[in-house]
Amino acid sequence: MTGQRLQTAAGPVIIEDFYPELDAGRYPIKREVGDDLEVWADVFRDGHDAIACVLKYRIKGKRKWIEVPMRHVANDRWTASAPLTENTRYEYTVEAWPDEYATWVSDVGKKLAAGQDVTLEAEEGRLLVEEAYARTKDPSLETVLIQTKVAPTEERIALLRDEAVAGLMARNVDRSMSSVYPVREVVVDRIEARFAAWYEMFQRSQGTDPTRSATFRECEARLPDIADMGFDVVYLLPPHPIGKTHRKGPNNTLNAGPDDPGSPYAIGSEEGGHKAIHPDLGTLEDFRHFVGACHEHGMEVALDLAIQCSPDHPYIKEHPEWFKWRPDGTIKYAENPPKKYQDIVNVDFYTKDWKNLWNEWLDVILFWIEQGVKIFRVDNPHTKSFAFWEWCIREVQREHPETIFLAEAFTRPKVMKNLAKLGFTQSYTYFTWRHAKWEFIEYLEELTQGEPREYMRPNFFPSTPDINPYILHSGKRGAFQMRLFLAATLSSVYGMYNGYELLEHVPVPGKEELLNSEKYEYKVRDWDAPGNIKPYVKRLNELRRQNAALHELKTLRFHEAHDENILFYGKSSRDGHNRIFCAVNLDPDWPHDTHVHFPLWELGIGEDEEYVVEELMSGREIYTRGSWFWVRLVPEENPAEMFRIRKV
Amino acid sequence: MTGQRLQTAAGPVIIEDFYPELDAGRYPIKREVGDDLEVWADVFRDGHDAIACVLKYRIKGKRKWIEVPMRHVANDRWTASAPLTENTRYEYTVEAWPDEYATWVSDVGKKLAAGQDVTLEAEEGRLLVEEAYARTKDPSLETVLIQTKVAPTEERIALLRDEAVAGLMARNVDRSMSSVYPVREVVVDRIEARFAAWYEMFQRSQGTDPTRSATFRECEARLPDIADMGFDVVYLLPPHPIGKTHRKGPNNTLNAGPDDPGSPYAIGSEEGGHKAIHPDLGTLEDFRHFVGACHEHGMEVALDLAIQCSPDHPYIKEHPEWFKWRPDGTIKYAENPPKKYQDIVNVDFYTKDWKNLWNEWLDVILFWIEQGVKIFRVDNPHTKSFAFWEWCIREVQREHPETIFLAEAFTRPKVMKNLAKLGFTQSYTYFTWRHAKWEFIEYLEELTQGEPREYMRPNFFPSTPDINPYILHSGKRGAFQMRLFLAATLSSVYGMYNGYELLEHVPVPGKEELLNSEKYEYKVRDWDAPGNIKPYVKRLNELRRQNAALHELKTLRFHEAHDENILFYGKSSRDGHNRIFCAVNLDPDWPHDTHVHFPLWELGIGEDEEYVVEELMSGREIYTRGSWFWVRLVPEENPAEMFRIRKV
Repeated sequence: MTGQRLQTAAGPVIIEDFYPELDAGRYPIKREVGDDLEVWADVFRDGHDAIACVLKYRIKGKRKWIEVPMRHVANDRWTASAPLTENTRYEYTVEAWPDEYATWVSDVGKKLAAGQDVTLEAEEGRLLVEEAYARTKDPSLETVLIQTKVAPTEERIALLRDEAVAGLMARNVDRSMSSVYPVREVVVDRIEARFAAWYEMFQRSQGTDPTRSATFRECEARLPDIADMGFDVVYLLPPHPIGKTHRKGPNNTLNAGPDDPGSPYAIGSEEGGHKAIHPDLGTLEDFRHFVGACHEHGMEVALDLAIQCSPDHPYIKEHPEWFKWRPDGTIKYAENPPKKYQDIVNVDFYTKDWKNLWNEWLDVILFWIEQGVKIFRVDNPHTKSFAFWEWCIREVQREHPETIFLAEAFTRPKVMKNLAKLGFTQSYTYFTWRHAKWEFIEYLEELTQGEPREYMRPNFFPSTPDINPYILHSGKRGAFQMRLFLAATLSSVYGMYNGYELLEHVPVPGKEELLNSEKYEYKVRDWDAPGNIKPYVKRLNELRRQNAALHELKTLRFHEAHDENILFYGKSSRDGHNRIFCAVNLDPDWPHDTHVHFPLWELGIGEDEEYVVEELMSGREIYTRGSWFWVRLVPEENPAEMFRIRKV
Repeated sequence: MTGQRLQTAAGPVIIEDFYPELDAGRYPIKREVGDDLEVWADVFRDGHDAIACVLKYRIKGKRKWIEVPMRHVANDRWTASAPLTENTRYEYTVEAWPDEYATWVSDVGKKLAAGQDVTLEAEEGRLLVEEAYARTKDPSLETVLIQTKVAPTEERIALLRDEAVAGLMARNVDRSMSSVYPVREVVVDRIEARFAAWYEMFQRSQGTDPTRSATFRECEARLPDIADMGFDVVYLLPPHPIGKTHRKGPNNTLNAGPDDPGSPYAIGSEEGGHKAIHPDLGTLEDFRHFVGACHEHGMEVALDLAIQCSPDHPYIKEHPEWFKWRPDGTIKYAENPPKKYQDIVNVDFYTKDWKNLWNEWLDVILFWIEQGVKIFRVDNPHTKSFAFWEWCIREVQREHPETIFLAEAFTRPKVMKNLAKLGFTQSYTYFTWRHAKWEFIEYLEELTQGEPREYMRPNFFPSTPDINPYILHSGKRGAFQMRLFLAATLSSVYGMYNGYELLEHVPVPGKEELLNSEKYEYKVRDWDAPGNIKPYVKRLNELRRQNAALHELKTLRFHEAHDENILFYGKSSRDGHNRIFCAVNLDPDWPHDTHVHFPLWELGIGEDEEYVVEELMSGREIYTRGSWFWVRLVPEENPAEMFRIRKV
């Protein structure tokens, strides 16, 4: 038996059961600026000797690690936190090593307590200092060596166990036998990734002439109204030239009339492609002016990015190799057999010329970033290459870390989760189809307490241009308020599609689609039409801004309510000072009342103590005692209530 | 923007949430010969096109993978199984790729069903065959091309969708866009790793003369008795020469008399070290003869491997660099401050000469394998290097895959689990200190249904030479029977320390230790002393052998019993044909009775149907109906009962 088979002696310390990490480090986790990154790991070694353990972190690309000593909690589990102060990617890991000096301190302590002779131990302790000095030449260690050279045992031991020497020894510790966990990555997004209210603006419908498209200048006129409702983001549909070939007519019919504007998702014509502005909307200059106007109102612009082309898109002639062609020489349009989408052709992400194709799409995004856009709502990302998105988002965020990508995928759970894992900042969700109390609890607990909390930020929309859910078909004011309240309080980032404030609801019969959708025709609205819920929207957004609890997602917790129709939940701010509770009547048709349960013990209020419940939607204040609180929620009056509790 | 930043286009298929794997593949999982390795993974791609997915496995070291097509279960989750037929290490992984042909078949089917024209589709299908032929030159594909060249559309489509062509296309599929999961490893041990009954024999106590050590020849005389009780493994304490320096006297006292034999764990004297046999026991030839005698009785030998030395061990003179020395030139003996173990010195696994040291210990193991030993019970492995064990066990099993290593660690949970992860075949456990019903349920569910089931095999011992648990101090026959019954039925591998059958129990007052332990003195016993429980042991081992359910560990499930003192559980054989239920009175002092709940629906017996309960310990048969069954368990008569159910 020779030593040939033997490769290497690893350090004695094991680091495992590391938290947080995603798929063994395959994907980064996500946090936001201002978060503390709490890291946990099981750290232990063979035998009984002491170990030391640090959390290391740095901004990706920097050389030097910052170290935070980890604290042993129990059962070989250690923890420490790193402050994430910048909007960038960080790296983090755990390093641990045998600590001979700490072992010596501990053993000598036990021997002294048992009254044993420690003459040899004193010398052994001094040898540890000698070894450290020989290795590091730290002059402070030399001082210790001189002081302990001829001292009597008791004095030597006392000196060697002194905290100052402990500090010196820690600073000069031998890490040659270190174990280091594989480096993990965390994407630290800006706060707006987690907290924002979006207004989805169909730009060509913002005018007053029903025979033509509105312009960006007309859109600007709408901004005071939107800002007044309290929105942070104005999200625009694709503003590019629209193809003529196979253009869709009203209600998605196959043959458009000559005056029909077509779907803004059939992108590209001889007037340009994804880097162009539809002439009916104005010029690129007008677009930039609109972005600036939004900023003046304290809002920013989100742009719809739909990677697909009309048959008239310039790419088709310039880069025929980016598309699939059929044996008869025609281009392969989009299909979901037996459905056909003749006004759309998809690019082939796996084309032989994929490098140029991928770079071109990256270029498109960078182009709009230059125009002042920092948020992209990506249409159907799951029908494009996962690898493309992972690469593209990383590339964009390397130079523009403030960029936010929202994945518009309504598909299978694993696919939606993968988009979030690979880099999308936010995700559309199944919220629109969740109605029962148990569905909300199950889904929101998964999102806020399950593994998705590490990488997936839900952006809740009660409706979209494509989804007019059954629950809104009645057009009941209470139903619209209730669904908006849920979106705005269950998630910390949510969106409203224009027209929602006007209770627009008429469906294509039997379908979850809007009749006469503005996707296929010109439309003008009276934005102050009677019965609008703009004051309700405004109040909700006001309360969201005023209450730090509602800026949070992961602090959501469900509490008891003794009625299947009433959902009761709460959130707290990071510092715990702001606590908000919400009771929602999920039934849009009938009033319901019940007791809900305030966790008074968490608020430091005794069961017999008087306290004040502020009803934030109604403005009432109620003096009461005891953790069970009566609520009555009437759909057409107050479908949902928000509570803040104050000590008397 | 250039293509420079763009590295590589990955295949479109994602493979994740892979099962089974341990710590992201850092350690192998464990199975036994005859197992089917069930593999699960989430497998999906962007878009809507079809994928194909296989499980691949091979014996480690072989080049060629064996492939099993995976089956889609639901929600993007796929599964397949690999039969593990050999006692060796296997590798396994999942490979998946886009399947253009399957996509074509599916799409064309939908279009045909919708009555659409598929002329172009027929040509596209044919082009797929053409592409496959151009790539593979498979002549069968050429035949298809000729057949479909001029045929009318309907005929072409029918032929191209034919199962024969599907088979051809699968065989010739293009895997250039495959995704492959990282390769994982499974250690396939022989059945005895999971199912065996061990008898711990203190070899020098097997004789008749209390003034001297028994010899291996005398030990052989004991074998018929042990085999008759139904044991499979005879486990010997270290049989090596014992040091004289600081030898321990009776009851672990510090000064041994001249005739005291010393602890067999103080290994090494001028008569030899870890490769030598204590002259009092006989010669190496005698040892080999003993091993052969065990084989003749259908048993094998497990050897105690204690990597530690007496101060007289030859290694100390031959390899002083393998040990730690103190400033006064004395050797550093073992300590656990303030406790001192002057009769033991530990080797330094992190010595500069570690390669030679590690190889020497590997050599010791290989030496005993040459003498016929295939099982090693390793003393205190957690105080040696984890990396050493991982390397050493892998080295041994590469050439001797039948070798079993049992880790004797009673330490913190993470440390014990790590030893199992890094390669130990079996583990001592906390069984000896589990007494309450909830403790058994919690601990056994963790071991048999939690992650440890993938890597940790518990070997349950009711007592050891070092552990005389309080519950046995009364010496009550019922207590001994109850604890043995639990060990033999909760786990599939268990052990009994000699003397247990004689109810030996007198403790060092107040401690969980045996008084006058044979570890420090000569001892002879009357192995047929009145009151022995040998018939009970024999019956237990008989029932274990007869009932395949008791060969299993992971099929353990707890069932209801309406009494906190009665633990009720069952196991089933792999094929489900053999089902065993056990009811144990955990209280050694008082009778308890209650209803226990048979899961009749799993046995295909109706709630109103008559069935027979065989009581296997008592031999009674009871005709009854209904899933609730009355049991009464009296400690001194039948502390536990085993049931088998038969349809009438």
